[in-house]
Amino acid sequence: MSKLKTIAELQEALSLALKNENLSKEPVNLYEPIEYILSLGGKRLRPVLVLIAADMFACDVEKAMPQAMSVELFHNFTLLHDDIMDDAPLRRGMSTVHEKWNTNIGILSGDALFVKAYQSLVKADINHLPALLDLFNQTAIEVCEGQQYDMDFETQDDVSMDAYLEMIKYKTAVLLACSLKMGAIVANASADDQKHLYDFGIHIGVAFQLMDDLLDVYGDQKEFGKQAAGDILCNKKTCLYIRTYELADSNQQEVLDHYFAHQNFDPQEKIANVKSIYEQLGVESYCRDMMGENYALAMNSMSKISVSHDRKAVLLDLVQKLMVRIQ
Amino acid sequence: MSKLKTIAELQEALSLALKNENLSKEPVNLYEPIEYILSLGGKRLRPVLVLIAADMFACDVEKAMPQAMSVELFHNFTLLHDDIMDDAPLRRGMSTVHEKWNTNIGILSGDALFVKAYQSLVKADINHLPALLDLFNQTAIEVCEGQQYDMDFETQDDVSMDAYLEMIKYKTAVLLACSLKMGAIVANASADDQKHLYDFGIHIGVAFQLMDDLLDVYGDQKEFGKQAAGDILCNKKTCLYIRTYELADSNQQEVLDHYFAHQNFDPQEKIANVKSIYEQLGVESYCRDMMGENYALAMNSMSKISVSHDRKAVLLDLVQKLMVRIQ
Repeated sequence: MSKLKTIAELQEALSLALKNENLSKEPVNLYEPIEYILSLGGKRLRPVLVLIAADMFACDVEKAMPQAMSVELFHNFTLLHDDIMDDAPLRRGMSTVHEKWNTNIGILSGDALFVKAYQSLVKADINHLPALLDLFNQTAIEVCEGQQYDMDFETQDDVSMDAYLEMIKYKTAVLLACSLKMGAIVANASADDQKHLYDFGIHIGVAFQLMDDLLDVYGDQKEFGKQAAGDILCNKKTCLYIRTYELADSNQQEVLDHYFAHQNFDPQEKIANVKSIYEQLGVESYCRDMMGENYALAMNSMSKISVSHDRKAVLLDLVQKLMVRIQ
Repeated sequence: MSKLKTIAELQEALSLALKNENLSKEPVNLYEPIEYILSLGGKRLRPVLVLIAADMFACDVEKAMPQAMSVELFHNFTLLHDDIMDDAPLRRGMSTVHEKWNTNIGILSGDALFVKAYQSLVKADINHLPALLDLFNQTAIEVCEGQQYDMDFETQDDVSMDAYLEMIKYKTAVLLACSLKMGAIVANASADDQKHLYDFGIHIGVAFQLMDDLLDVYGDQKEFGKQAAGDILCNKKTCLYIRTYELADSNQQEVLDHYFAHQNFDPQEKIANVKSIYEQLGVESYCRDMMGENYALAMNSMSKISVSHDRKAVLLDLVQKLMVRIQ
């Protein structure tokens, strides 16, 4: 059986494929923003997952390249529209598309990018088309639902932990799971293996998001590279906040309501006071446990996949590397 | 061979199918706007074309219903996003989605509607999937390009007639042509017949748009039901304007530049003065001729389709009814 490709090899193959996408077309106001957002880089995690999954089942990774491109194009489409909805000025340290051009161009080039994702998706064997399309359509609609729940939660006081977990599953985890399953489909993996790999993606995706929530407040800021406790400063309802609000007495709830109703506080004072309630109620370890549970569920799903441990090595290494920041 | 269905019968079948789309789902802020825009009605011209085309080739129209739904869902997605880009307050006399809810909800529910169009599209025999997807993807990207050209033209002084015709082809005609071809694909029409029907759709779509341009200025306002010369009042570059600008001497160009640079004129004075230049240069008959040529090209394409004249009757009747307003 073929030797597994390394992450570096997969990323290089992807960069080449991305460069070969011909986007220098008319009208320039439609295609330049697409070229621009794709050029901003990023980890290319989702397309790498497509290729890793194909490789796991001993399929030539080039065969899964169009589907890898498809999830990357789709992901960038969601970033483009999310940045408009969040009114975000920056993406990866550069101006967002709607800032550099305007909102209309952001909406329309996002739409065109979405179509390009479908164009790439369907470069597949005809017998794979129904499964790929059902999966991709279902995932795309769930990502929209996740984004809507996220926007709804901003103005909602009583977000339950279950609702939060459902939201991050839709907004983040389903696309990771979809990426893995796509690679498995193209590689003709069995239905059972496809399912186990998908479930692995869901659980690991939820674990990643819970890790992000924790890192924001408790991570090493130098390594993590984001503003300390940015989630607290912009009143984001994370697993830490939601668990805290569930456990808080009326005095503590009042403090939280006070700080989360506005943004015009001294940042350090706000962070210190909110973190202090987090600590009083021990929510850090609760959220760590929840993350650990999802990680364990992911590993359990992985163990059911009917390929040798060797062939799982690259995916497990990647996940270890991504999770290690919190352990 | 089966008796052709009437337009009324096809529209009823469509209404039923639209009602059966289950859209009462969570999150409500995602799905209510979709239900709302679909409930605003309209002629349902595009899905009717899918069904007419299927019927023309003696295919059970119910077999083409998912594709008919798909083009209607796609069309409404484009309306939803176009209304945001145009900052339009009203759609069919009712509040637009971004006015009734907000822009973010308009963007996201539009995205979800686009996915729903794909979900409906792929409810097809597996052997039809590649053709349906290639056609739909190509059409969707062209509609985006057409919308971008239209936005670009707003701030562009030197729009040529060729560029204008290309824009209306992409923005309007390709979706009509796509609708017809989809019905033909599902009905297993020959590749030649599919092509002729597609070409018919392109030419008739361009003729329709030229007719709209003419009706805006020269139509019977009571019957047409829109504001007289609305295109002139909002500085829209139509075939009349573009031809006029091509022929105008420097004095006439100055008058046009003056009136098309702003909106704060007495409406009747602006309309009268612009129309007067249109008349001096005889652009009405030029545009009528161009419309007639496209109509003739459409009929020529139709004549090549290898079914009896009887089976073309419903489509030809519909087109006659839509074109009669100007003849």
